[in-house]
Amino acid sequence: MASNDRTAKALRKWRVDAADAAFSVESFDPGAKPLGSGNKSADKARVEALAAELDELQNLFYADGRHKLLVVLQGIDTSGKDGTLRAVFGRMSPIGVRTVAWRAPNEAERARDYLWRIHAQVPAAGEIVGFNRSHYEDVLVPVVEGWIDEHTARQRYAHINDFERLLCETGTVILKFMLHISKDEQRRRLQERIDDPAKRWKFKREDIGVRAKWDLYQAAYSHAIGATATKHSPWHIVPADSKTQRNLMVATVVRDTMRRLDLQFPDEDASLRDLKVS
Amino acid sequence: MASNDRTAKALRKWRVDAADAAFSVESFDPGAKPLGSGNKSADKARVEALAAELDELQNLFYADGRHKLLVVLQGIDTSGKDGTLRAVFGRMSPIGVRTVAWRAPNEAERARDYLWRIHAQVPAAGEIVGFNRSHYEDVLVPVVEGWIDEHTARQRYAHINDFERLLCETGTVILKFMLHISKDEQRRRLQERIDDPAKRWKFKREDIGVRAKWDLYQAAYSHAIGATATKHSPWHIVPADSKTQRNLMVATVVRDTMRRLDLQFPDEDASLRDLKVS
Repeated sequence: MASNDRTAKALRKWRVDAADAAFSVESFDPGAKPLGSGNKSADKARVEALAAELDELQNLFYADGRHKLLVVLQGIDTSGKDGTLRAVFGRMSPIGVRTVAWRAPNEAERARDYLWRIHAQVPAAGEIVGFNRSHYEDVLVPVVEGWIDEHTARQRYAHINDFERLLCETGTVILKFMLHISKDEQRRRLQERIDDPAKRWKFKREDIGVRAKWDLYQAAYSHAIGATATKHSPWHIVPADSKTQRNLMVATVVRDTMRRLDLQFPDEDASLRDLKVS
Repeated sequence: MASNDRTAKALRKWRVDAADAAFSVESFDPGAKPLGSGNKSADKARVEALAAELDELQNLFYADGRHKLLVVLQGIDTSGKDGTLRAVFGRMSPIGVRTVAWRAPNEAERARDYLWRIHAQVPAAGEIVGFNRSHYEDVLVPVVEGWIDEHTARQRYAHINDFERLLCETGTVILKFMLHISKDEQRRRLQERIDDPAKRWKFKREDIGVRAKWDLYQAAYSHAIGATATKHSPWHIVPADSKTQRNLMVATVVRDTMRRLDLQFPDEDASLRDLKVS
């Protein structure tokens, strides 16, 4: 089942695929349910079905071996990057699927350009790689913290566009998702981490400091997305206050993208046809 | 001793630092001696002195730790890439200096874009890296062999310019040298490899096949250099029929470039001044 026209049309509104200096994430509603059926348990079942379909597609993607797929997940703390990776990639075979969670760079990484460690982890032919955070942290955090000026930020947007064009022109499909939650929803989720002993390990004191810079981060996301949205490497803004809706959108976009690749099992070896294993 | 004005002027003629679709290496004389004094043993002594000065500069470069230096050597078989690296880098400390000899890509490398393995080996802060062959092989060999069309070749020139701009804008100085020998000189050197039992291991039968494509390779070099010569990542055409003249030019350019970086030992730690080791 490919997305029907109505789904495709709904998704287009959340897709950003051209540079736009005036782009603002704040014009997108984090509580929207563009793919929702109005029935939560039906939507959950659709996510399950999509995950199963993605498992089959990944098997074919690996066998086909002609493409590379890079899925970038960005979003502020508690926006659900881990949960989305589990929901979308969780059923797939570990052979041919890999996720990378990016942390602050180590000493060896800081000694090179900021794309060095990213390039090292790009997908190989037939491979799907999911990034939990990414090189976009290098145009979000330093901008908000004032470590780089506007000139350097612009240079970095250009570096990133160049880098992603290299990947695309050499066979990589890139899908970038910004998991978009409201400030209220973040408050609820942070509080839940503090209150729930089983989730407390996820909470770090500095999360509060980052939350205090909410508006700066929203602005930094808007600039970064507006500067790095291209036809070949689009952004998708994902309304993520509802986990089910979030998973539904990301899984649908990934599924539709993989479907469009016209994946094929390799030509069968005709000499095998009459082979009897003795 | 920095290069005097006459040397700087002589070097400028062999430096290519702007795109030029009509660029041709064939307008450069491989037998020229732009820096030669007219006395071969005096020139050899100058190379020795330069190598010693480069050793001191490298020590300072490493201590300074703010820059990265990438030296790319390209040239047809027998043009002297190994010999140049030995002459220029040979005296330097292995700490902070590394050379990479690029061969045909392996399976893991072929499964990614062609700049993936190159990016992995770029210099760290304070490090000097010499490339014996480089990513330019990916716009020379496939063009000559007809594996890629002109559109793809142009795409790759753009990828390379983008990649080198990323490196430069994040603190890497790039120097690219084309070691330029005449067809006659190559014949002599290949014949010497065949005739001298101590050099025969260097000779491969396919070298003859590559030599037969001499004109195609000269044209491919001309196109690649004309498309990838930039202010921040210039090419230097090195007349290389004479090994001494070749070493003299490369060592002089590297030395002058390092001198211009205004390298400094790090600020001393004032608290060490009165420290007595007991």
